[in-house]
Amino acid sequence: MSVIANARILTIDGTMTEIERGWIALSGTRITAIGAGEAPTHLGPVEDMNGDLIMPGMVNPHCHMSMTLFRGLGEDVDDRLFRYILPLERALMTADVAEIGARLAALELIRGGVTTVADMYYFEDRIGAVLDQAGLRGVVGQTLANFAAPDHSSFDEGFARLDALADLYHDHLLITASAAPHAPYSTGLDVLARVAAWSADHPNLPIQMHLAETQAELAWAQEAHGCSTVEVTDRAGLLSPSLVAAHVMYPSEADMDLLAERGVHVAYNARSNGKAGRGIAPITALRARGVQVGIATDGPMSGNTLDLFSQLAPATMFQNIAGQSRGSLPCTEIIRMATIEGAATLGMADRIGSLEVGKQADLIRISLKDPRLHPIYDIYSMLTFATMPTDVTATMVAGEWLMQNRETHTVDADKALRDVLQVADQFKARIVEIDQNASKAPI
Amino acid sequence: MSVIANARILTIDGTMTEIERGWIALSGTRITAIGAGEAPTHLGPVEDMNGDLIMPGMVNPHCHMSMTLFRGLGEDVDDRLFRYILPLERALMTADVAEIGARLAALELIRGGVTTVADMYYFEDRIGAVLDQAGLRGVVGQTLANFAAPDHSSFDEGFARLDALADLYHDHLLITASAAPHAPYSTGLDVLARVAAWSADHPNLPIQMHLAETQAELAWAQEAHGCSTVEVTDRAGLLSPSLVAAHVMYPSEADMDLLAERGVHVAYNARSNGKAGRGIAPITALRARGVQVGIATDGPMSGNTLDLFSQLAPATMFQNIAGQSRGSLPCTEIIRMATIEGAATLGMADRIGSLEVGKQADLIRISLKDPRLHPIYDIYSMLTFATMPTDVTATMVAGEWLMQNRETHTVDADKALRDVLQVADQFKARIVEIDQNASKAPI
Repeated sequence: MSVIANARILTIDGTMTEIERGWIALSGTRITAIGAGEAPTHLGPVEDMNGDLIMPGMVNPHCHMSMTLFRGLGEDVDDRLFRYILPLERALMTADVAEIGARLAALELIRGGVTTVADMYYFEDRIGAVLDQAGLRGVVGQTLANFAAPDHSSFDEGFARLDALADLYHDHLLITASAAPHAPYSTGLDVLARVAAWSADHPNLPIQMHLAETQAELAWAQEAHGCSTVEVTDRAGLLSPSLVAAHVMYPSEADMDLLAERGVHVAYNARSNGKAGRGIAPITALRARGVQVGIATDGPMSGNTLDLFSQLAPATMFQNIAGQSRGSLPCTEIIRMATIEGAATLGMADRIGSLEVGKQADLIRISLKDPRLHPIYDIYSMLTFATMPTDVTATMVAGEWLMQNRETHTVDADKALRDVLQVADQFKARIVEIDQNASKAPI
Repeated sequence: MSVIANARILTIDGTMTEIERGWIALSGTRITAIGAGEAPTHLGPVEDMNGDLIMPGMVNPHCHMSMTLFRGLGEDVDDRLFRYILPLERALMTADVAEIGARLAALELIRGGVTTVADMYYFEDRIGAVLDQAGLRGVVGQTLANFAAPDHSSFDEGFARLDALADLYHDHLLITASAAPHAPYSTGLDVLARVAAWSADHPNLPIQMHLAETQAELAWAQEAHGCSTVEVTDRAGLLSPSLVAAHVMYPSEADMDLLAERGVHVAYNARSNGKAGRGIAPITALRARGVQVGIATDGPMSGNTLDLFSQLAPATMFQNIAGQSRGSLPCTEIIRMATIEGAATLGMADRIGSLEVGKQADLIRISLKDPRLHPIYDIYSMLTFATMPTDVTATMVAGEWLMQNRETHTVDADKALRDVLQVADQFKARIVEIDQNASKAPI
């Protein structure tokens, strides 16, 4: 048992309770009491937060951690996925390399105040091992796709990996296995149906998928199935409260109604979509229908950063632009979407996402000492528009400090970076070859 | 004479010369030599940059520094300007208060790597004093407006203040006086014409004005003058290469042609406009016509942050969304717009904005040690999408370090913050009164 004291506390509970100066008692992995004023001394040793802000750790419901290795590659090149990323993945993405990329991501998540991440990529047993070692809470999603994947060459193999993953993380405190069909167009209806059946057998495990992300995807659904990509997914039986649909850039009104009716959850990747020039996801329209939406980073190849602070301003600005009002998606809602609603998006709101008695002790400490954060008329505005990931000084998951005074305890920062830079050198050499071959191609 | 050595140098010159490991020699306020490899020792004491990035200090061509005092106030309230800001300004904005707000801004600018700022507000002699003391380069713009301004009650008084300002900063190395008519709708055609005449008498001083910022402004111009707000301004003779027009959200095609023809410069406030739900300024269309555009923060009441790093991602994302391509406004261009093109926007590109022999030594040092900045395939992408103001470790203006190891030498950070918090308490008390009176008003 221990107590965190002398903190400005944002609980993000149902009534957004704020405590100007208060304390939180911890026992094992959980919060056992929260109060205002002087901390009780009979509940264990007291750690003074020195007036810093304590809030729930943030939840990132859509990420591809290993893709730190591609961060900023071909930034302004519209065809960079097919030109660089897929060939590099095919040639060089081994289990060891995926793990190296994921470890840098874990470091960045901890340092940015993210305590729960949903990952979809390959070699997810290794991603799980990284999360386990780092002490982060995570959903590890085995990707299933029809293009040559680094870790499976047939869907049967992919599903075998998925089953092994579910066995491996069965009953793990922090890590949850997940099926991650890449997208309707890259799996096909039969695989979606197979995932739906798998989901029915594993009702507590989330499913992750990119959905209605590109115009090309809409055209594919129309041509192949004569309906929208959301409807295709529904026909396969995959629209359910287990599904975390990432992006959802181009749903029709009927699609949005259907997503709401089926209880599908959505991961909003404002920065990634904005950078790609894709537009603005209809998040206020989805939320008005009661769809649960979390704020996500997408992979660092797309969004560059893995902290949610870098997402918050874009997430609200985009909706304000679309809604022609500065109040379209208020800062209080943005902070809820980055915490409790992100937790709900992953089906974990009973355990994490707010600071309440009985919940897991996943929380972050934010220093308010930087002059650029002041004055504070509205703490949620300050968090949305002025706070940087570098203001997070400490991160706790399940009662364990993963970082204090910006020193990470569970990830060797120097080694994590060194390993990534070594792999990136191999990638750079291959990129030179790709560009040389492209310039040699007959016109 | 002194030498900065062992640096990764981005010159942002005409050919975007990059030096992997190089040095810069300084003498007085200027750069006297730049080279690659080992630094010469005969040019003065050598300071080791330890492999950090050195690039030109950033230029912020549109700001209201004193409005740090309103940061985040009424964030989601569409009428907050008339509800809170103007009444607070009228009641409480004295010269001393403006100076206190500006000092916190100066601190934030230095800490965020901005070396030149164009300000438009009131009591600009006091803003100039803050910049002078802080060692920042700046344009101080006397605002002229028909609503009750804190420092003048008639335009004659405003122009008298302007003339005094021009006298005060005549021949100052770092500070340039400027006329700042608030906007066409808040000055009227006769005042714009009077500013145009003043400008003709002061050909080397920039003019700053909000232009085509709101739909209401367009409606005003149409109703009062039967033309666009850009045309109104042209009729008054104010469209010239001296004019820095801020926002320019809603120009017609003809307006953009006219702005290009007259050589008007534009300050692009992506974050401020996005937050307000105003939309996306047609920056690629303006630049395609040859209009000089710099990236600006607007005041902290609108944009919250005063560093340009927080602007860079929105600046490109917005254009990518409008242009439906990830290459609409490439990262190299974004970095140019934050440095050399920002300098050109203020008519200072002969002195600042790039690291070249003969130019003023305005530069910043950026630590590349944070893992979230790696790997680096494209340094301009890294600066645009991953770098935070907190990565700036040192800031130099005119050969003088204003900050080293994140310690500011010219501004007392603790005192600057303490003073602001004291004023903010008075503001908060008045806000309570405003809200109480509003709730008492007859329905």
